Amino acid sequence: MERREGSLMNYGMVNRVLGNLLMFEAAALLPSLGISFFYGQHDFNAFLMTIVLILTFGYAMSKLPVRSKRIKTKEAITIVTMGWIVVSAFGALPFVLSGALPNYVDAFFETVSGLTTTGATVIDDIEVLPYGILFWRSLLHWLGGMGILVLALAIMPTLGVGAFQIFKAESPGPISDKLVPKMKDTAKILYIAYLGITVIETLLLMVGGMNLYEALIHTFGTVGTGGFSTRNASIAAFNSRYIYTVITFFMVASGVNFALYYELYRGRIGNIFKNIEFKVYISIFLAISTLMSISLLGYYDSIIDAIQHGFFQVASIMTTTGYATADFDLWPNFSKALLFFVMFIGGSAGSTGGSIKVIRLVILYKLVKREFVKLMHPRAVVPVELNGKMLSSDVIANITGFFFLYVLLFISGTLFISIEGVDFVSAASASAASLGNIGPGFGRLGPTQTYAFLSSPSKIVLSVLMLFGRLELFTIFLLFTPNHWRKD
Amino acid sequence: MERREGSLMNYGMVNRVLGNLLMFEAAALLPSLGISFFYGQHDFNAFLMTIVLILTFGYAMSKLPVRSKRIKTKEAITIVTMGWIVVSAFGALPFVLSGALPNYVDAFFETVSGLTTTGATVIDDIEVLPYGILFWRSLLHWLGGMGILVLALAIMPTLGVGAFQIFKAESPGPISDKLVPKMKDTAKILYIAYLGITVIETLLLMVGGMNLYEALIHTFGTVGTGGFSTRNASIAAFNSRYIYTVITFFMVASGVNFALYYELYRGRIGNIFKNIEFKVYISIFLAISTLMSISLLGYYDSIIDAIQHGFFQVASIMTTTGYATADFDLWPNFSKALLFFVMFIGGSAGSTGGSIKVIRLVILYKLVKREFVKLMHPRAVVPVELNGKMLSSDVIANITGFFFLYVLLFISGTLFISIEGVDFVSAASASAASLGNIGPGFGRLGPTQTYAFLSSPSKIVLSVLMLFGRLELFTIFLLFTPNHWRKD
Repeated sequence: MERREGSLMNYGMVNRVLGNLLMFEAAALLPSLGISFFYGQHDFNAFLMTIVLILTFGYAMSKLPVRSKRIKTKEAITIVTMGWIVVSAFGALPFVLSGALPNYVDAFFETVSGLTTTGATVIDDIEVLPYGILFWRSLLHWLGGMGILVLALAIMPTLGVGAFQIFKAESPGPISDKLVPKMKDTAKILYIAYLGITVIETLLLMVGGMNLYEALIHTFGTVGTGGFSTRNASIAAFNSRYIYTVITFFMVASGVNFALYYELYRGRIGNIFKNIEFKVYISIFLAISTLMSISLLGYYDSIIDAIQHGFFQVASIMTTTGYATADFDLWPNFSKALLFFVMFIGGSAGSTGGSIKVIRLVILYKLVKREFVKLMHPRAVVPVELNGKMLSSDVIANITGFFFLYVLLFISGTLFISIEGVDFVSAASASAASLGNIGPGFGRLGPTQTYAFLSSPSKIVLSVLMLFGRLELFTIFLLFTPNHWRKD
Repeated sequence: MERREGSLMNYGMVNRVLGNLLMFEAAALLPSLGISFFYGQHDFNAFLMTIVLILTFGYAMSKLPVRSKRIKTKEAITIVTMGWIVVSAFGALPFVLSGALPNYVDAFFETVSGLTTTGATVIDDIEVLPYGILFWRSLLHWLGGMGILVLALAIMPTLGVGAFQIFKAESPGPISDKLVPKMKDTAKILYIAYLGITVIETLLLMVGGMNLYEALIHTFGTVGTGGFSTRNASIAAFNSRYIYTVITFFMVASGVNFALYYELYRGRIGNIFKNIEFKVYISIFLAISTLMSISLLGYYDSIIDAIQHGFFQVASIMTTTGYATADFDLWPNFSKALLFFVMFIGGSAGSTGGSIKVIRLVILYKLVKREFVKLMHPRAVVPVELNGKMLSSDVIANITGFFFLYVLLFISGTLFISIEGVDFVSAASASAASLGNIGPGFGRLGPTQTYAFLSSPSKIVLSVLMLFGRLELFTIFLLFTPNHWRKD
């Protein structure tokens, strides 16, 4: 029974859901169409053509014959992985058709970077781009942050079947819990929290002097932990302590498990502070930010500047956002080394942050501690517990596999980029920044640089790493297994 | 019972064994004393004073009262860890007393680097040093390679009790097997294989034109996977394809589990090729060496040179020896990046090679593969097997803990070194080269550079990393646990 489920694919339902997802993408393009119409800019036609094309494809796919409504693990994984690729493939069209990025590989890189909330760019001068294009670019962050399929799930009725499988496959982190009995309701709750935070940050940024358009774009970049801006100099362009502080706060807030906002809403504050991942996440952030600020004391004239930039940049890299208030590539070597390793921490499970994520590091740390006990008491049985529950050996093996695969992918990415002669620090940081969905790196890929100079093969490899990172490594590999595609 | 064993320390036996170990060290200093006498060099007095001092301390310690002959896990771990520190602390004296390294921290670094088979040096010009000092420096590699305590175990009668615990705590690799029922005999077999390989390589190097003295020193550096030479330019100074090839072969041979040489001696060749770690070790070496040679085709004029240097350098770094036939810091970026990551592979368990070791990587890789199966069949029970045996969840947890702790120590070392302003590549490679017992790194710590310029705190931290690496991480930490020292 279990074998049969795993070995045959229900193509009908896969097509239908992907078709619906494309129609959802067409709808998501409407605000950008509206903006380009409002400002009378030349990208209007690009959006119109893309929407018509996507609607045609999406409608056709959703009408293909369906023999069974079954969505099990296999179909869910296929839908999620193909979904992200298809949405990126079509989402790249406005960049090409508007002439913003005439090369399709560049456009695909930029779209994947947006949707996976990476925020790495191949555009050297973003300030000359039309408003609609910039809005679409940043909206991708917002759509991808919580998971575009989960969003579709919360809104559209057709996905009812197999919804939990899709949720599990798309949600960041090793353990996915339903908050309420019905999956669709859980997705809705998460998206209401997401929307609420979005509205609050937008308003606070407008208070700081941004107009609605800029406030929205930087809010998308923050709450999606993406990092796209409207300015070439990123957040540094605003040169405002108020804006730095607001964005620091919301970056940290977006790295928190969104389920905890539901606890907050239900008034169960105690549950939040009992959550081990939350406590460790905040502690790591505060500890590293303090260390970073101290390391910057000699670099900045004022203590306030050292603290401001130290906390901002640690928040930005740790939550995998990638915004910058300073060219940290010029910082002292210790500060840079520290920031490099912060790239491997990430946000909490169930947040929009990428990378390895705090919960996994907590469990790995507990395994190290366990070994010390075992060393002294070789025959003792020492369980590993989390939030009062014992972890199964399956979860431990999963996290080990994830961690090792993460390291392997990081190494492979670094080696691939260095084939075209890129130095170690630039190549390693490009690989880590892509896999961790961060954006900027160091050296030739520092915060004032772009990924434009890389070859097309390197851009494709980095795009794939971004997808690996966002979809938590394992799902994508399966697409390359011939067995996976056997038909029902 | 188990708790009681773990919580109280039998100081009497710890002192006695450490005392005997020191007397063994005094004996190990005799060849150097003889060499300095033979050549009539000024380091004679340094050796004589050291030997007298060590004998006095060692004799006194071995005569301290012993109430119980019990050596359990706790005592064994303490003996091994303290043993390595004490032998290094006294072994540093000839460097100080002869004036070769007047600063004790430098001398300690050099001695730990020798004994742990790291091969990192703080001496800018080794060619001016007296012969006795250079011989002692390289003999440390040979003594530390197979484990100085295991060697003492094979020779001295007093260690009979708890021998297996000591063997387990000192032997490299996650799984230690006895080859024959009696531990002492197992140690003897391993040392006979070690001695045999030493004799063969020495003879082959003499055939290549080295005198006995140089042949011995380079053999110690090879079979201990250490890397100390008599020349500032390392192996490149000999500029001989024959010598390059001999050393390449013996470096690879020293990264093989020495138990397999016992199988070879017993004529059980089949068992060797059934050993999964051996097969993977050789495959990884061949694959990476080939890739490296290809990457060097544009750098060297002749294909033969590309292959010669490619294979030599991969063998050298992978087995954690650290010899160089070229300044690989000048190689193309891809070659350098590849060599950097090779630093994390290491030899086989039960070899003299350090770093993570192939067996652990094999198991980690199997855990990744297992996750793909679990992804498609979430409820399936998927065991992980090795050489036909199922791995227990304890071994898996141990390897996970080791791997994560290794990464954490590597990161901590890099950060510490970068505090004094060292750039990322130099700092990261110094940390990896120390923890992995390799020796040379990149940038300011490249193969033509030394560790001399670093501050004393950095040298101490790197010495500690070398000990962590050689004693496989966990044992050393225990010394910092107050509970560990509670008296019987």
